[in-house]
Amino acid sequence: MNIQRAFSIKGVGKYLPKTTISSSKIEEELGLSKGYIFKNIGVKTRHVAMEESNTFMAEQALRSALKDANMSIKDIDCLIGASATFDYIIPNRSCLIKNAFKEAFDLDFPCIDIDTVCTSFISALDYATLLLHSGDYRNIAIVSSEISSIGLNPNDAETYSLFGDGAAAVIISTTNQKNGLIQYKSKTYAEGAKYTIIEAGGNMNPTKNVPYDPALYSFQMQGRKLLKKVKSTLPIFLSQFFKPLPVSLQDINLIIPHQASKLGLRMLATLNKGNSENIVDQLENHGNCIAASIPIALVTSIENKTLTEGDTCFLLGTAAGITISGLLFKYSRL
Amino acid sequence: MNIQRAFSIKGVGKYLPKTTISSSKIEEELGLSKGYIFKNIGVKTRHVAMEESNTFMAEQALRSALKDANMSIKDIDCLIGASATFDYIIPNRSCLIKNAFKEAFDLDFPCIDIDTVCTSFISALDYATLLLHSGDYRNIAIVSSEISSIGLNPNDAETYSLFGDGAAAVIISTTNQKNGLIQYKSKTYAEGAKYTIIEAGGNMNPTKNVPYDPALYSFQMQGRKLLKKVKSTLPIFLSQFFKPLPVSLQDINLIIPHQASKLGLRMLATLNKGNSENIVDQLENHGNCIAASIPIALVTSIENKTLTEGDTCFLLGTAAGITISGLLFKYSRL
Repeated sequence: MNIQRAFSIKGVGKYLPKTTISSSKIEEELGLSKGYIFKNIGVKTRHVAMEESNTFMAEQALRSALKDANMSIKDIDCLIGASATFDYIIPNRSCLIKNAFKEAFDLDFPCIDIDTVCTSFISALDYATLLLHSGDYRNIAIVSSEISSIGLNPNDAETYSLFGDGAAAVIISTTNQKNGLIQYKSKTYAEGAKYTIIEAGGNMNPTKNVPYDPALYSFQMQGRKLLKKVKSTLPIFLSQFFKPLPVSLQDINLIIPHQASKLGLRMLATLNKGNSENIVDQLENHGNCIAASIPIALVTSIENKTLTEGDTCFLLGTAAGITISGLLFKYSRL
Repeated sequence: MNIQRAFSIKGVGKYLPKTTISSSKIEEELGLSKGYIFKNIGVKTRHVAMEESNTFMAEQALRSALKDANMSIKDIDCLIGASATFDYIIPNRSCLIKNAFKEAFDLDFPCIDIDTVCTSFISALDYATLLLHSGDYRNIAIVSSEISSIGLNPNDAETYSLFGDGAAAVIISTTNQKNGLIQYKSKTYAEGAKYTIIEAGGNMNPTKNVPYDPALYSFQMQGRKLLKKVKSTLPIFLSQFFKPLPVSLQDINLIIPHQASKLGLRMLATLNKGNSENIVDQLENHGNCIAASIPIALVTSIENKTLTEGDTCFLLGTAAGITISGLLFKYSRL
């Protein structure tokens, strides 16, 4: 297949919070029957940031990726923050991550944030390939770090039991090999923009006027409406995505979907002709980690050799917005 | 000069909140002497969003840009939100802007947010030229919409009297003319990442644990430290920016700086060999509108014909982070 914009993955890293919370503990807390959450939501356990910040997790993930790449922060030409949650409203995430590297205080490489909620990593990876292709950069770090746990409402069992926290970093580099981006597409179906929302904390319902209320300050999801919209649009998205390509979804070596929900993953397996073998599913041990889900799964797949040199890999995500994004690439370290 | 990535500006629009608040009114409120704010901060009046949301202002600015371009929302291939403030934490800004166009419900063009705080518009414009250049898009809308007024602390006279609200939209398009991006550079000096900060409202000090306090939930600026850092880095940034070009800062037809502060604008005039004639200064009537400052100034300059066909225009901004970004382009509607 034609490589649209070549890149190699030089290093990957992840950080998962020390504390894990089992679904059985949440079942006790919410008064749900034993096994209810795994059966209905698909999650057995998730990491929860009790002592970590978004920036700390991002820093650890990036340090791990640098080590994997045999690089230092001095080798990085641009840092992209690709997350939906943040430590501070201002400044932006990526500048805070760079700030955590005290040894980078005399380095002037730029930091930028990309936000398409759960598909931020995919958007950032496409953007990074454009930057590499523009000739100004050689090594770009993309970091997704998410703490969902602070914005969950214990009175909403569906979201409270679904989400988890974590971070991952990927360093992509220029290459003269024929590896890298085959195709990227993103589409937004804005009719469903408010199907998933945090009502308060922004300018619409500022903390100045709206005191803390778990319902208003937590992530709300109209799950049924969202699933209905994705059900009607995802097959069209996939059909349009693969139409210009000489391969179909079934031919891809590894499919890494956003770990949106059990039903979402099942929907994808159905569209993959009932085959879930080449679809990465880590919902059971991580839950939905917002934008960090896809890169955590990517890092894990590289670490455990599910994704190996020369494989085709398809990142596919649905996000609040509603945005659907897909990025097909040929994986290589070279 | 060589055009690195061609583009034309097909349409521009802005929206300014209906309510204006004069500095004399703020002087009364804060017990400051008459004329203090204009003398020290440089602002006489600013627009304040009393009845408008970020999304509403963005929508109005984009509708105005579409009208100017003689386009409808159907002609847009991608929408980039380029702001630091937001109506909701989730979903992202650009999806909410698209959602305000009910006539766009059956359109699937993608929405993406770029955040480099005050320089978000510059970052988004560079990104948009990369997208145009990649061949997938013809017309891209960039929208910056900022409400700073909600996050200001009346006990902090410096910031309370400096900021204003507003929105602007620019539609850029492919062209076969030799106009467009000449050069873009961005650098982040992360040592100063926390010189400008909103302490609470993110995961570090979440509303769940930290009740409303104007100091914690408002924008804080260590003005002196910030200015010192910019004073030492901006001359180097400009020198590096213009080194590869056959022109210097003084040769540019129009310089549109971020309206950061009176001292910041004065510093730029000094670096421009004392000439402030070709530097757009709208601090007096708008204040610092975060990421919307630069595009509002760009739109106004096009509307009042300060920027005309074929002119060179240099966008230059400093942002929380600390990020400095510059983008030089040859302006054309063709």
